[in-house]
Amino acid sequence: MGAAIRAVPNRAARAVNLLRTVQFSHPPSCPCHSNPSHHHHQPASSASTVARFADRLARPGPSRGSRGYATPRDPSQQKEYAFEMAASSIRFGLGVTREVGMDLQNLGAKRVCVVTDATVDRLEAMRQVREALDAEGVEYRVFKGVQIEPKDYSIKEAIAWSKAYAPDAFLAVGGGSVIDTAKLMNLYTCYPSASFLDFVNAPLGKGLPITRKLHPLLAVPTTAGTGSETTGTAIFDLTTHHAKTGVAHRNLKPTLGLCDPLNTRTMPAPVRASSGLDVLCHALESWTAIPYTERVPRPANPVLRPAYQGANPISDVFSLSALRQTVRYLPRSVRNPEDLEAQSEMLLAATLAGVGFGNAGVHLCHGMSYPISGQNPGYRHAGYEVDAPIIPHGVSVAVSAPAVFRFTGPSNPERHLAAAEAFGVDVSNVKRESAGEVLAEALTRFLADLGDQPAGLKALGFGREHIEALVEGTIPQARVLMLAPGLAKELEQERDQLRRLFEDALEH
Amino acid sequence: MGAAIRAVPNRAARAVNLLRTVQFSHPPSCPCHSNPSHHHHQPASSASTVARFADRLARPGPSRGSRGYATPRDPSQQKEYAFEMAASSIRFGLGVTREVGMDLQNLGAKRVCVVTDATVDRLEAMRQVREALDAEGVEYRVFKGVQIEPKDYSIKEAIAWSKAYAPDAFLAVGGGSVIDTAKLMNLYTCYPSASFLDFVNAPLGKGLPITRKLHPLLAVPTTAGTGSETTGTAIFDLTTHHAKTGVAHRNLKPTLGLCDPLNTRTMPAPVRASSGLDVLCHALESWTAIPYTERVPRPANPVLRPAYQGANPISDVFSLSALRQTVRYLPRSVRNPEDLEAQSEMLLAATLAGVGFGNAGVHLCHGMSYPISGQNPGYRHAGYEVDAPIIPHGVSVAVSAPAVFRFTGPSNPERHLAAAEAFGVDVSNVKRESAGEVLAEALTRFLADLGDQPAGLKALGFGREHIEALVEGTIPQARVLMLAPGLAKELEQERDQLRRLFEDALEH
Repeated sequence: MGAAIRAVPNRAARAVNLLRTVQFSHPPSCPCHSNPSHHHHQPASSASTVARFADRLARPGPSRGSRGYATPRDPSQQKEYAFEMAASSIRFGLGVTREVGMDLQNLGAKRVCVVTDATVDRLEAMRQVREALDAEGVEYRVFKGVQIEPKDYSIKEAIAWSKAYAPDAFLAVGGGSVIDTAKLMNLYTCYPSASFLDFVNAPLGKGLPITRKLHPLLAVPTTAGTGSETTGTAIFDLTTHHAKTGVAHRNLKPTLGLCDPLNTRTMPAPVRASSGLDVLCHALESWTAIPYTERVPRPANPVLRPAYQGANPISDVFSLSALRQTVRYLPRSVRNPEDLEAQSEMLLAATLAGVGFGNAGVHLCHGMSYPISGQNPGYRHAGYEVDAPIIPHGVSVAVSAPAVFRFTGPSNPERHLAAAEAFGVDVSNVKRESAGEVLAEALTRFLADLGDQPAGLKALGFGREHIEALVEGTIPQARVLMLAPGLAKELEQERDQLRRLFEDALEH
Repeated sequence: MGAAIRAVPNRAARAVNLLRTVQFSHPPSCPCHSNPSHHHHQPASSASTVARFADRLARPGPSRGSRGYATPRDPSQQKEYAFEMAASSIRFGLGVTREVGMDLQNLGAKRVCVVTDATVDRLEAMRQVREALDAEGVEYRVFKGVQIEPKDYSIKEAIAWSKAYAPDAFLAVGGGSVIDTAKLMNLYTCYPSASFLDFVNAPLGKGLPITRKLHPLLAVPTTAGTGSETTGTAIFDLTTHHAKTGVAHRNLKPTLGLCDPLNTRTMPAPVRASSGLDVLCHALESWTAIPYTERVPRPANPVLRPAYQGANPISDVFSLSALRQTVRYLPRSVRNPEDLEAQSEMLLAATLAGVGFGNAGVHLCHGMSYPISGQNPGYRHAGYEVDAPIIPHGVSVAVSAPAVFRFTGPSNPERHLAAAEAFGVDVSNVKRESAGEVLAEALTRFLADLGDQPAGLKALGFGREHIEALVEGTIPQARVLMLAPGLAKELEQERDQLRRLFEDALEH
């Protein structure tokens, strides 16, 4: 630990005084410190990203000495000046599921609500969980009524169940749908008199911040995709509004994620592929999101700072690592059900990407995916044995990815080139103008090589006649669209851009 | 969020069954799954590190099908099979100190114990803190009696003070000494009847795990060094035993670190240099520590899993990023007191390194530094205006670094080469056998270029006659020595190795 003796020497004292003059008369809230364009956040390596970031922080700008700039303009137009990184604790290891009983004992839990779905309830993961809880004499009840791709009504049923049981801790065992449902059960059990829309993201809900401390929530993921075990996000269909939305606040995040590669082995290959594509898009979207310093408005209170903040130097480290790992291990994981190394790596990649996008956010692939899934013209993804047509979430995000990164390329060529490099492309002679195109091509090849992926929206049954509805279904996804680089703020322009994006996504 | 439909196909089902046979009859506790040598954890890139790691996890080993191996041998010899990453939430931005009043309000704090030292109490950081607390009407009292390089008695005084005040939240404003003292005030205020040695690291203390939830602790670092704002570690002198020790448990970590580059500007250049060298060694030691899978014993309960676990694929990402950033920005930060960009980067690097070593640990540089500082023959580091001789912590860790990495090189040449590469060395033609030497040379050059650094223990006034005492002062640092790659477990061999390390550290 560093000694903290301070004896400010003359040169330093002068610098500090200078800084005080600049900073305290013109705090970072001064709008002239932030860059008017949000299209050039930079660059490829995380070290230089950080450099650029701090450069923005450090630059006193034209306001130096000019007190005229000190008056803040409209607060809703002030850009962000800080970021906050929060993630669940993560325990990773082959067999860690068996520790969960001791964890709940250590937390002093007396009534545990175990949340799962009917399928996972029959898998080895739940057998291990029951054994672990029984071994420690933990009192629990299992709610196995989680609906895949949860709806507001399925969530409300789950909440009613947990309110009646009045647990003092939650344990989610399953994929993203299960973990997300458990988060909301915890939230509304701790806010028993809140109305359902209070915490739901604006504009559909009120988007209130979560200020109370919730009960402990442990999460045991059984897919390598959502990263939900690390994030403060819970997604569902608001059927009254025919829209995907959710609740997103860092205080919603689990206490601990127990990542056990034994639990993801039960995924059949098509599920491994589509959940891996979700990881891929989490990584790519958070890496290319607008920088946090370009987000408006600056929150008046830190509790209002969203979890989805835009790219920042810590999320960058996670997102880029997750991207590289996914490119390397997803194909192996899909091809060979016995390749436990690749599957372990993919679970780790999902978690790393979760920390990245959980603090930086996602943008167009996810924003566009919600109407793609919701307005499915009848596509049934091979390998998903379900009664109704289904476009798995990972498929619906990846299908537009080539079009999306072709579009976002000019906003930050360096980052798009770095991403293309992660796919193995030699970018040494690629022009900056081609960055988006090169990444789009790398993605298209990756999806084709992975196999069994639709080569665009047409392969899902969409045609030009569906585009208007897809655009209108995307517009309400303000929370993620605001992080999309290059997307217009003016509604008609935005519609136009989305229209062209969906057109481009018809065929890779 | 990924769909979680499962329909196990035949090939996968077979694999799962095979895995179950292997894993559940021979859980990862089976000793034959772990590698007998701990000298070859691998390799340079984080992606391939992760690969190797999962490879170790995945490898069924010679036990496949051989039930004879299923009986666990002596549990104290079982190696670890999981790692846990925990870090404080981090908020980073120029001016974030002013948000701290709102944070405490949001936490519902009614009586806040503000912890600082007499010097920081007069700095801008504390002025900002007072203003922020007053603006929100938060009730608080300031304890400014923290001693730099705290002693057991100074800690006990601080604890007595906070027990009397009975706060419901803590706010630490200062360097590592302040943040560490605040952690212990919080701990013993929440365990009012515990005796001081209960939580102190074994073998000097009882090393009990912290199972209670402590009060919220917010930390505002004013140095870019310790990373204490992210870790569960608190270090002090146990004067009764003439040894540095501490308390280390992830539940000790602050709730939130508020990293404000405005607060580290008050460090004079020599303090910037030595705290930056602490960051450098945090990064290098955690990057080269034994892998977590080589640590013994495997904890019987997850609460016993130490914070210092050995290198793991998530800490690796942090440690290597922090190393690269420190090499790049520390010289600039030391040379130019007006280079706010470099200073911001160093604060970020300190935090990243904090997350890295806070979960992986440090080893020989830190273990050897404690007797070096404690047995100071009379050295006064230039620029430290204090009454007594002082070897600043960062200087005492860096002075042995070339000798340490020369020694640890053979344990993992790839990682040492990757570290040398971070210093700008072209390692393409370096032989693996020279990895330690090449890193030692790079470090020696880096320290010389930084300026005002002692070129070995001789420059601090130590001679061969001091070595035995330095060795004996290092031996009790079991908690970090156990993570040192290549160090013998047998006491006489270990003494001999330490003797040669101190000899080699006499002159770079």
